[in-house]
Amino acid sequence: MHIDPHTILVVKLGGTEGVDFSAICKDVAELVNAGQPVVLVHGGSAEANALGDAIGHPAQFLTSPSGFTSRHTDPQTLEVFTMAVNGKVNTLLVSQLQSMGVNALGLSGLDGRLMTARRKEAVRCVKNGKRLVIRNDQSGKIKQVDAGLLNLLLQAGYIPVVAPLALGENGEALNTDADRAAAMVAVALQVDTLLLLTAVPGLMRSFPDETTLIPHLQAAQLDEAMQCAEGRMKKKVLGAQEALQGGVKRVIIADGRSPQPITQALAGQGTWIQD
Amino acid sequence: MHIDPHTILVVKLGGTEGVDFSAICKDVAELVNAGQPVVLVHGGSAEANALGDAIGHPAQFLTSPSGFTSRHTDPQTLEVFTMAVNGKVNTLLVSQLQSMGVNALGLSGLDGRLMTARRKEAVRCVKNGKRLVIRNDQSGKIKQVDAGLLNLLLQAGYIPVVAPLALGENGEALNTDADRAAAMVAVALQVDTLLLLTAVPGLMRSFPDETTLIPHLQAAQLDEAMQCAEGRMKKKVLGAQEALQGGVKRVIIADGRSPQPITQALAGQGTWIQD
Repeated sequence: MHIDPHTILVVKLGGTEGVDFSAICKDVAELVNAGQPVVLVHGGSAEANALGDAIGHPAQFLTSPSGFTSRHTDPQTLEVFTMAVNGKVNTLLVSQLQSMGVNALGLSGLDGRLMTARRKEAVRCVKNGKRLVIRNDQSGKIKQVDAGLLNLLLQAGYIPVVAPLALGENGEALNTDADRAAAMVAVALQVDTLLLLTAVPGLMRSFPDETTLIPHLQAAQLDEAMQCAEGRMKKKVLGAQEALQGGVKRVIIADGRSPQPITQALAGQGTWIQD
Repeated sequence: MHIDPHTILVVKLGGTEGVDFSAICKDVAELVNAGQPVVLVHGGSAEANALGDAIGHPAQFLTSPSGFTSRHTDPQTLEVFTMAVNGKVNTLLVSQLQSMGVNALGLSGLDGRLMTARRKEAVRCVKNGKRLVIRNDQSGKIKQVDAGLLNLLLQAGYIPVVAPLALGENGEALNTDADRAAAMVAVALQVDTLLLLTAVPGLMRSFPDETTLIPHLQAAQLDEAMQCAEGRMKKKVLGAQEALQGGVKRVIIADGRSPQPITQALAGQGTWIQD
């Protein structure tokens, strides 16, 4: 079966607490059963944090000089991240989708070289007001996504569920940001719509005041919008920017906590970013 | 590219300590680079035990009335098993193979309904001399393996690496025995050769005396051979029997600890079981 890339929907669902995986999966099932091809990309921060706590290696976060927050992925944290995100969250999503009749297939970026990245050899960060350089970080920025593998699976009727690990240049596993991974997936597939689900209603002019939700933004306003973005929302805005620059027509940042998060987002909820 | 099923080699590698994954991967890489299609099925007991210990939920084992040992997979153990085996071991194998130029792709039985199973609703076992029935076990016996998905991947140039989780009838994840999973994979693909690598030289007439290694066995002798099999070897003999009954021509149980475990096994080492 040939699939028109414009019809594929790429959905990123968070690893944040408050997001209801089963409501999202149910919504995915309705769309898929109605013939809508979907690619899911997921996070798993909350599970990775919980496992890190359980084995006595709690998560640590780094703040870049420009204010972006990311997990400090030392080698043991990478192991924790792999187990929690690729092991637990990915399997849980595939299991939920399968129980709803969706033929989901889980992959990480290592599988079949789906997502390749370059390891960040030196991560600049600020800790207690001091600038530091971290050199043991096992994370990377995605360089390439292999749309061929995703298309092979979609054409054979599978719904890919992608965990945010990438393959480094030496075959190593690298942690990678799930929002930006979803953006790269959307660009590689040349889809029209990327949906980033999160635990807030969208981008707010004045976080956390939900009455200040920004319903529409143009790509050219994103640099300015970045000023409103707090914490992890910064990565979503960055992902949106990368997706639009790569040819995706619209990025929707919407609430993953609603009963039908995808349907509602596509019906106009959340922050729509497009020209 | 069409692949003749007879040429595919199915290799099961253990999760037991002492088995050197990197030597096995190196051997796989040589074979794959020489044009040999391979499907790997792996275990992960040692990693699952280690993670269970680390989070304070140590592994427990059940012994069936007929002497077979299996993991007691209560719901929390299933989570541990999923993280350790599908998360860590599978990703590690894919990563090692990728670093050697093999385009490995990791899957569990849930992915694309690769392996479906029925949950064992009542597991009979013997504990301290008493017979018990365990009802919360999240493990299952594989009913079906979808050769179509494996062939799709092999034909596209991917080397599947399969974690021993299966999809239950309600979409749930189930722990499943890796040796018997490998046997079912070999049967579904209709391959000629199934290789079960382990941490001993093969089946021994008098375990652990390695000078009593049985080099050749006929399928008809397997019931008798079962008497010599100790502990986990019983599952391998059972897997061998299931594979041969399903049309696989030969099963080799061989030492995964040698420098070139696959090459040496194919050259005649270990216990060859065939008619």
